[in-house]
Amino acid sequence: MTDRRAFMKRSAIVTSVGAMGLALASPSVIAQPKVRWRMASTFPNTLKVLYGDAESIAKRVGELTNGRVEIRTYPAGELVPGYQVLDAVKDGVVECGHTAGMYYIGKEPSLIFDSGLPYGLTARQQHAWLRYGGGDRIVNELYDRFDVVKFASMQTGELWGGWFRKKIETPNDLKGLRIRAPGFISEVYSAMGAVPQQIAHSDTFPALEKGTLDAVKLITPSDDEPLGLWKAAKHYYAPNPLEMNAACCFIVGKKAWTSISKEDQSVIRAVCDGQVQTVVSEYDSKNYPALQRLVANGVQVEYWPKEVLKAMYDGSKAVLDKFCSNDPAFKRIFDQWDKFAREQANWSSISVARPENAVIAMRQADK
Amino acid sequence: MTDRRAFMKRSAIVTSVGAMGLALASPSVIAQPKVRWRMASTFPNTLKVLYGDAESIAKRVGELTNGRVEIRTYPAGELVPGYQVLDAVKDGVVECGHTAGMYYIGKEPSLIFDSGLPYGLTARQQHAWLRYGGGDRIVNELYDRFDVVKFASMQTGELWGGWFRKKIETPNDLKGLRIRAPGFISEVYSAMGAVPQQIAHSDTFPALEKGTLDAVKLITPSDDEPLGLWKAAKHYYAPNPLEMNAACCFIVGKKAWTSISKEDQSVIRAVCDGQVQTVVSEYDSKNYPALQRLVANGVQVEYWPKEVLKAMYDGSKAVLDKFCSNDPAFKRIFDQWDKFAREQANWSSISVARPENAVIAMRQADK
Repeated sequence: MTDRRAFMKRSAIVTSVGAMGLALASPSVIAQPKVRWRMASTFPNTLKVLYGDAESIAKRVGELTNGRVEIRTYPAGELVPGYQVLDAVKDGVVECGHTAGMYYIGKEPSLIFDSGLPYGLTARQQHAWLRYGGGDRIVNELYDRFDVVKFASMQTGELWGGWFRKKIETPNDLKGLRIRAPGFISEVYSAMGAVPQQIAHSDTFPALEKGTLDAVKLITPSDDEPLGLWKAAKHYYAPNPLEMNAACCFIVGKKAWTSISKEDQSVIRAVCDGQVQTVVSEYDSKNYPALQRLVANGVQVEYWPKEVLKAMYDGSKAVLDKFCSNDPAFKRIFDQWDKFAREQANWSSISVARPENAVIAMRQADK
Repeated sequence: MTDRRAFMKRSAIVTSVGAMGLALASPSVIAQPKVRWRMASTFPNTLKVLYGDAESIAKRVGELTNGRVEIRTYPAGELVPGYQVLDAVKDGVVECGHTAGMYYIGKEPSLIFDSGLPYGLTARQQHAWLRYGGGDRIVNELYDRFDVVKFASMQTGELWGGWFRKKIETPNDLKGLRIRAPGFISEVYSAMGAVPQQIAHSDTFPALEKGTLDAVKLITPSDDEPLGLWKAAKHYYAPNPLEMNAACCFIVGKKAWTSISKEDQSVIRAVCDGQVQTVVSEYDSKNYPALQRLVANGVQVEYWPKEVLKAMYDGSKAVLDKFCSNDPAFKRIFDQWDKFAREQANWSSISVARPENAVIAMRQADK
């Protein structure tokens, strides 16, 4: 650029801003290029709230940058198979992805800490661990090996136990049970004698109907309702402590990440931060009405017997012990995480669950 | 602006961007003026997490706009007395404020719905109500009358019952008790026969030490610890259901709000959204260590006897009944809110508190 051109540019801006009686805009704003990214999601667009998070991220990033950063979202399978999103972002097939650490424990077992462990943290505690408990530093080191940066971008809260063709009365009823369950909790189900199956969300209904599956674990009532699984399995099990929370994430390939400005990086971080609470709120407000409609359709809400909960606890411990002894790096993270989890359980029993239980008891006694 | 000047401006930008080989930035970005606002907080900077939220909002808005939107924060009393922030923003004394609806129920009783009601919603439920349960529409209509727009920008979680010189064994021990408690819950304490006092955070220690106060309700261990109240009152009461959550907010005067671009408005909204979860995480990670230090200093953690919890429930109902019969608008909001609160209590007993209780029980049985 010649001096004359540089001068013209400067003087034009000063004049224009001066005419409006305003201070000078930062010149770095002007130089920002348009960013166009593609986001592949692990989730199908039939899971409205879950996939809706991907759409919300794109929409809000667009709003905050006045359309300068344009992200287009693709549901599972459209550009990339759902469970290969991490690789696709790593390899630059897409610039960014919408997924969860739990789907990649075959590549890196410790990624389960980014999503939530059995008998682990509540949604609120998970984000406390990530944000202020050392978790973000730990999981970002893991994602770094895949050449991606990651931001917690949503949270389902407690996942429901799922749709079962028959009631579960004792731990024995789990033996031989063919249950659709992904990742880590499939290991716990195996430890309890079940035969977990990993099939895509969309294939669950026909399998359940044909009887080649006995049970399907999905999300929560508002995501589950449209799939109509109750027509094949009417026992709907409430959450158990195997999945107290499921944190999902937005990941960006390092090359794409470093190509954008610090300002745009801050925008993405802030939008993801906001989505965590927003999606929990969406689930919480939609789940109970969805559950009421399901019950009106003949769905039977079931709770886990104490004996089964104990078997799940023992199964979880056995699986975590196995992971810890197979993988010293997993063990180191587990020890850090477990200390935090124990403190949070104590804290909750004093300060969180205790008053909530008092409210529930008093409200239910006074109908 | 003359045509020539306008042309110079356009051509200079095209040249500069063209030289970098990049697509053209949206011209509206260029025209954005620098924004300089002052934010008055209701909270003193001695309450680290609470006041820290105001500082974080300012910092993050600066990052997302590359310094274009510059907000300077002022603790309670520096520009504006803490409990007059709403008026100061309404009157344009400052452009924005950091406060909570609960402090203005003398002007508009229904503003309590924006902060949290006794025997009401948990933090998570409060934001579900605001965001997706019709709450935001309701409270924004209230704030509109004060010529401000408002965004939930933080959340304390369950507030601790406070610092007491003597143990509370029965509802009778509350009779005549001089307790520092603000706003709505002071009404409930009155209904139970106590004599609530409204004094600033900073004046609580000397009053407690001199014995002109019997008890002080503040925030949670991490905010309370630095104030050293245990030196004057060692009984520290865990949360009761009078304040299951306290949502705080960022408010902007309408004139300031409409003077900024849609893009900057989106930035402010996103930053506030993100702060809600972030601050809860900060409290959750810091509170238990702070509590452990307090206990090491001789603080005695106390729980509310069942009989006292029942008296609090009856007191809360009596106060809410009074507000409802005095104010038909309050009653209309209450009915909408109460339906949501009952549904959420049912939902939690099935899906949230239930599995959390199972985790706590199992972890505590297996130390």
